[in-house]
Parts: sequence; C-alpha cells; structure tokens
Amino acid sequence: MVRAAVCGTEGRQFESALVYQKMAKEKKIKPSKETPSGFIDRKEKELLIRDFVISNIKEVMIKYGFQYLETPSFEYTDSIGKFLPDKDRPGEGVFSFKDENKWLSLRYDLTAPLARYVAKNYNEIPKPFKRYQLGTVWRNEKPGPGRFREFLQFDADYVGTKNPQADAELCILLAETLSKCGLDKNEFIIRVSNRKCFFGLLDFLEIKNENQRIAAVRAVDKYERIGIEGVKSLLGKGRTDKSGDFTKGAELNKKQIDGIVAYIKENSLYDEERENFKGSARFAPLAVWDDLSPLYSEGIRELGGFFGLTELSEYKDQIVYSPTLVRGIEYYTGTTFEANLLFKVKNQKGKEIEFGSVGGGGRYDNLINRFGNLDVPCTGVSFGLDRLVFALMQKKDFKIKSVKPVVICIFDQKNIENYFGILNKLRSSNISSEIYPGEGKLKKQMEYANKIQSPCVIFYGDDEIKKGEVKLRNLKTGEELSIKIENLVNEIRKII
Amino acid sequence: MVRAAVCGTEGRQFESALVYQKMAKEKKIKPSKETPSGFIDRKEKELLIRDFVISNIKEVMIKYGFQYLETPSFEYTDSIGKFLPDKDRPGEGVFSFKDENKWLSLRYDLTAPLARYVAKNYNEIPKPFKRYQLGTVWRNEKPGPGRFREFLQFDADYVGTKNPQADAELCILLAETLSKCGLDKNEFIIRVSNRKCFFGLLDFLEIKNENQRIAAVRAVDKYERIGIEGVKSLLGKGRTDKSGDFTKGAELNKKQIDGIVAYIKENSLYDEERENFKGSARFAPLAVWDDLSPLYSEGIRELGGFFGLTELSEYKDQIVYSPTLVRGIEYYTGTTFEANLLFKVKNQKGKEIEFGSVGGGGRYDNLINRFGNLDVPCTGVSFGLDRLVFALMQKKDFKIKSVKPVVICIFDQKNIENYFGILNKLRSSNISSEIYPGEGKLKKQMEYANKIQSPCVIFYGDDEIKKGEVKLRNLKTGEELSIKIENLVNEIRKII
Repeated sequence: MVRAAVCGTEGRQFESALVYQKMAKEKKIKPSKETPSGFIDRKEKELLIRDFVISNIKEVMIKYGFQYLETPSFEYTDSIGKFLPDKDRPGEGVFSFKDENKWLSLRYDLTAPLARYVAKNYNEIPKPFKRYQLGTVWRNEKPGPGRFREFLQFDADYVGTKNPQADAELCILLAETLSKCGLDKNEFIIRVSNRKCFFGLLDFLEIKNENQRIAAVRAVDKYERIGIEGVKSLLGKGRTDKSGDFTKGAELNKKQIDGIVAYIKENSLYDEERENFKGSARFAPLAVWDDLSPLYSEGIRELGGFFGLTELSEYKDQIVYSPTLVRGIEYYTGTTFEANLLFKVKNQKGKEIEFGSVGGGGRYDNLINRFGNLDVPCTGVSFGLDRLVFALMQKKDFKIKSVKPVVICIFDQKNIENYFGILNKLRSSNISSEIYPGEGKLKKQMEYANKIQSPCVIFYGDDEIKKGEVKLRNLKTGEELSIKIENLVNEIRKII
Repeated sequence: MVRAAVCGTEGRQFESALVYQKMAKEKKIKPSKETPSGFIDRKEKELLIRDFVISNIKEVMIKYGFQYLETPSFEYTDSIGKFLPDKDRPGEGVFSFKDENKWLSLRYDLTAPLARYVAKNYNEIPKPFKRYQLGTVWRNEKPGPGRFREFLQFDADYVGTKNPQADAELCILLAETLSKCGLDKNEFIIRVSNRKCFFGLLDFLEIKNENQRIAAVRAVDKYERIGIEGVKSLLGKGRTDKSGDFTKGAELNKKQIDGIVAYIKENSLYDEERENFKGSARFAPLAVWDDLSPLYSEGIRELGGFFGLTELSEYKDQIVYSPTLVRGIEYYTGTTFEANLLFKVKNQKGKEIEFGSVGGGGRYDNLINRFGNLDVPCTGVSFGLDRLVFALMQKKDFKIKSVKPVVICIFDQKNIENYFGILNKLRSSNISSEIYPGEGKLKKQMEYANKIQSPCVIFYGDDEIKKGEVKLRNLKTGEELSIKIENLVNEIRKII
C-alpha cells in the first residue's frame, strides 16, 4: 500500500508488464534483440554529421541573438494539447502515461512545450523572447520506411511580436543554416505562404465547419506526397493508402473540391509529373485570385510585408512564394514556410524517394492564449535534423573525418609498463590511441586493427624495447618503419 | 476498427486521455503551466556548460579510441530487463507502454540497450568493441529535491574482454575527462572496489539467498547518504525515510548485520561525522579480511591486477581502493568504481548537500548472455552529466562566455533597408546582432536590450544615415560614440 502511494504510477499497466516478464522468465523466452518498430540504432557516420549540423545551427542561433532553453520530454497532456497533423488517429499520435491523477505525454514537438514555458514564465522573459531548443520528439504514429516514431528537432521561436520582421528573420536564419551546413544556394528553396490565404479561399468556397477546414488543410498539405487525385479523395469521402489504411476525408461538395483543385493547379510550384519543385518564384500573386475574401486579402498583405524584408537579405532568391503550401499542423495562423531540397535523395537501395522538407514553420498567434488571457503572438521554425543529415550524407563533396585510434600491439604482458609509456606519450600529444586489451595472438590483434580502420599499429617487442625504437606499420600502405621513440609522434602525425 | 488496427496503441489508456481532454474542454479548465513533478526546464547558463562538458567528453572518447553509437529511447521491455537499484518499487521504476502485443519501455540507462545492440549485431562488431553514447534516460521514481525522473547520461563501454586493462582504461578515462572539464586533481577521487569482494564477504557470513544478497548490496550502497544506522535498518527489517516511505530490508540476522557493519567501519573511506571522503588510499587490503572466502580472494586478485595498471597512469593518485563501494545496480559482477567530488556542493539556498557521484560504473560479464549463449564480458562507465554541470557551476574560477546580440534600434520603419544593411554587415562579420522587431518606443527597445544583457545598441536615425555613421552605446559603461559605418565592426569587437 505504501509503495503504491509513493510512486503513483498506474498500477494496472505496470502489473501487466511484470506478469509478462515473469511469464517470459518461466517459459525461458529469450528477450528480443530487435529495436521496437519505428525506432532505430544510429551509427558513427550519421552521428558525426549530425553533431556537425547541430554545432553549425547553434552558431547561427547565437549570431541571430537567440537564447538557449530546454524543456523536459514529458509535459502534462493537457498542457501540450493536440495539434498534430494526424489528429484522427487513436491517442492523437502521442505516447501518454497516467501519473497519479494526471496524464503525462511525451512531447510531439518543441512548440507546444515552449507555449507552456512562456505562459509559466511570462513575467520574467524578455519581450520579444527569442529562444532555440534541441530535443527529441515522439509521435505514436504508424511506422513506415524512413518514418520513425522518434526524431530530433532543432527549433527557433520568436515570441511576442506580430511584426513580419520576425517571420522574415526565421526564414533567413533557415536559409543561412542550410547554407552553413553545406548546401549550395541552388540546392534548396524555402517556400512561403500564409494560412490566411488558404482559409480565405475556404471562406470564398463557403467552407465554414472548423473540422472540414482543418481536414482540407491536411489534405492539401499532402499534395506533393499523394498527388492531385489523392488530395481530391481526402477533400471528399476519404482515401485508402497502399497499405490498406483508410483516412476519412473532409466531405466537401463537388464545387468546393473543384475550387481547391483549381487553386492548386494554377498556383503550385510542384511539378507532379517530374516530382520536383520548379525554380524560384517572385512574390507576384495572380490577380484572378486577389480578392476572394477579406481574409485572403489580409494574408496577401502580410506576405507583401514579409517579402519586402526577405528581399533585403542575401537569400532573397531562395525564399519564394508558394501559394499551395499550407503545413498540416492545426495551430498556424499566418505566414507558413518550408525548406525543400532541389536535388533528388535516394534511399539505401539507390531508389529516389519522396523526401519531404528539411525544415519549416510558421506563425501561431493563439497557442499561448490557451493558458489564460495572454495575447502573445509567436512564430517559429523547426529543423528536421535527421532528414538534413540523411541528405548531406548523399552529397559527394560532403566529408566528415572520423578519427580512429592507433593500436599498440601486445607481445608480452610483462612489458605492459612499456606499452603504457607509449600510450601516455601519444595521448598526451592528443593522438587517438589504445593498447590492444588482452593477450590475443598477433593475427587477432591485426584483424581488430583492420576492422576498426586504425591508421597504423605499433609493434614494441623485447628487441625494440632494447633499442629504444618501435616498428610502425601503416595499415593503408602496408609500409613498416623502425622509428626512434622520440620521433614517434611526428611520424604518426604524417600518417593520420 | 481500421484505425485501431493501424496504430496498435492500447485503446483503453488513450481513450481515458481523450475523455479527460474533452472534460477539460467542456469545463473550460485552463491547461497547467507547470512541468510534471520530477521534470524541469533548463536555462542557458546550465546548457552552455553542459555543451562544454559534452564536447570535452567526446574529445576524450575519440582520443581513447571509442566509437560513437546511438540506440533509441524505447526498447522492448523484455530486452532491457530490470536491473535498477530500486527494484522493489512498482513498475520497476520504468515508464512502459503497450504497443500491439509487446511492452515498450523508455530506457533507464544506456547499458541495457547496449547489451541488446551487441546481441543483435554480434557478428558485425569489432572484438573487443568500444563504444560511447550520449542520451537521456528515464526513471519512474519518486521525485525529490534535485532528484529528477529524466537525466542525461554519457557512457563508454568496453565489450568482449575480461582483461583488467579495460576496467583500468575506463577509470583513467573518467579521471582525464573530469580533469579536462575543469576539475583539479585534488578535487575528485575515483573509488574502486570489486563486487566479488562484497559477495565473498556475504559468502563468509553465509548469506546465500539471492534476494538477500542484492538487498544487502543496495543497503551498503546507500551508506554515504543514510549513515551506518540507516544501513543497519536496511540490512534488518527495513527503514522509513524522512518523508514516511518505508523500504523493506534484507532481513539478515544479527550476526550477519554485525559482520557487514564491522566491514564498513574498518574499511570505509567515508568519514560519517565530517560527511566527506578521506584522502587517497593505496591498494593495501587489510590482512584480517584477506581470506574470507574463495570469491573474496578472487576479487582481491582482480583488484591487484587493476591497480597494477592504473599505477602506470597520470591519475594514479586519484584512483583509490575503497572496499565498501558496492554500487546499487544488480548486473555488476566484478570491478566497480565511482567518482566523487572532494569539495562541498551547495544547493540554490546555499546549503551544503549530499551530492552523490558524478560518474561510475563497473564490470557486468553476464548481461549479454541473457540474449542467448553469447559469452561477452563487458565493463562500462557512465557520467552523470547534470550533476557534473551543477558542480562546475559552483566553482568560482569556472566561466563560460554567453554571447548576447548587439541590438539595432528602430526609429522609422521607412529606414528598414538601412537597418538591414547594418545587420547584414555585422552578421557577415560573425557578430551576434539583431534588429529590434517592431515599432516600440525607444524606451521599450532599451529595456529589451538591457533585459537580454546586450553589450551595445546601435542608433541609426535620419541624421546618422545622412552622415554615414551610427551612434553606438556601450550598455556596460553607458558611453556613446559616433562611428563611421566602415569602422563599426572594429569598434564593436572592442566592446564584446
């Protein structure tokens, strides 16, 4: 009784886990060696590139005057709400637990927790408040190829101003970051639109029901993935995907669907046949769409202010107008944007894949208002780190050096003090190095050194010890040299 | 029906979350602004120090020849088993979910997932295999002051060798890392013992029941926190802590308890009255304890091999013998070690606190064997990053520079192009800078600049624009200078 009160976890749930473990033990079922579906192990090459990308993003964040913040993985479920693209899935796509009397959820993005943070600390933060955050987010979605249930995000948000300068700053920052990470200016575009334009179109088409409006946003958001026919189905009764799963549609009438489809066809930057984005597009809204509704005009006016500012930046050609960009998340209220690569990305089998964006965001003026009567307009950008890393790994001219240790071979345990002498010498010169652990035969030690891609191995047997020199074998060339101990560091520096 | 099949989350659990959210909406309950109990927000100063620590640890890892790896947050519950110190709590102290027919848990450390990784990839990995990993871990424990339910760990593990060289390497690495992060050699010790010695003592005392043995380990592990009387209770019937929670004891008999207490009193490096560790101790086991049991002697022999190696390192005085160190985790089988600070750490109220270790680990030779018939001896070390950062923040001579932006004030929106000109100039010179977003009065802009601790602000009004110069105000000194645009970057560099 005492223990249950102490911890306050949901007893029933955990008891089942225990019963399962006990069963497994009794039946001597071996535990699984696999990662759960939608989760993966990541190896050195990817992680080193990710570190490189993260450190570049952090540098840009600091240069642009953003502050570092971190919120926890878990939030109260009611704090972060339910604003995911796939609202219509069970559990809203989040991982949740019951903790005493309240529900906790793993965050599904870094924006909803920021809104909670601002509401909590509103009196203390600067106004406006610019913060950046790096963190894992989780989505309890259906896993698929390249679609994971946890991923790393890097966000920058601008809190407390309606000024389009904030939106422009974030798009410029997004462009500068991609550029700093190694993408050429002709390898990406940042497509920009405004949620008010699309909602203005829906006003014109007399689509007033809130659920239908959000369903229409989500349908159009999927255009580049599912094509115009897929969008039509999602605007209508619904759509069954390749795996047989059915997504309910917006249930619009034919006239409404035709209106949206015409808007996409005339305005989209996406070339459905070539499966690619067209080059850059200056902000020049087609006159025919110009006065659909007051909301539409307001969106166009805001975009005018926005593009007036990005025109002043180095990335004016990368930041382009894209009327059909809507972004699937419910909380956006104004300017939205998304970074797309202009080169094709291939999967591990060499097949070109539908890749999605490497970053995006937009304005969400009403999110913090949920916590009380705080009128705090916000805008933010989120980097899809894993995708960006995946894309960079495919660029031929992109290389990250991975340092491997020099291996000091063991001939006789009685000479271990001598081996440590060499090791201390190398490490104090900041050379990655190690003594092979154990007394394995030389053949096994060499297999190990080759397997870890060591640049060179050191032989330091009785003879060498007497002479005060080592044998150094370059594992790339196979060349072997006798070297005086005092010259060792310099010789190794030539090889690594 | 289709949707439930798709996602495979536990329907009941999520339905309750939805019902709760719906109730909250109907009753117009405002969402909570608080972080859940045991979880906190972290701010810039701490995060910058943490980044500094992480980048130093990574450098040492590479120098010592460890490979970078990352496993996911979630593992199948049966894969990671249940080896936590507080095994006797409900749910084993982990956060678990049901996913289709299997249970998933958030990892509680990085060692159990490594064991799963090695079992899965045994044929591909080098032997021995040295890997490092950084990641958040979660414990569903009772939160307390400074005791959180998520924290960041940095681990290095040496897989596939029984050689004491591997254990020695990890302790030397631990010492070098602490040193590189800014601790002087007289500010920490690494206490070392061997689980076989303590189990050998239990053999001698005829404590054979497995649960009693583990309970005894956990009791002694808490010695520095709860004192000898607390340990006595935990070795006996149990102990009620300050908050009224009861922990069941090992239920040993009086003779057995007296034996363990005598062992602690004669061997501990901890001074209970001064609440501090005694200085360094060479490996010199007391003869009186020397032949308690075969297992005890084996432990002493292994320690002899270990200390023979650490003696050869630069950190020989920091790596000390500490017979009463046991470590609370169940899976250890041999050498165990723990890094303790020798200076007092204070909490935010200035009160000295019981601080625990900033890193530790040990040998776990049987963990991978759970997955099949793989005989893979392992040893590992784990850094408690949050604690290390907390301790470094208290050192007077430890400073991390936090860069704040130069603020370009707005006088008139019509001159925005000029402001952008200055901004582009500064940012292309890599100077952190921003234009104040909006048209707030100058007073408000100055309040903002002071609040964010900007080093200086730039005034660029109509007059200055005509003259081709700006007014630069140093916010530390209050000094204001008129500066030609071409000299601006150099002048700012003098201030920041």
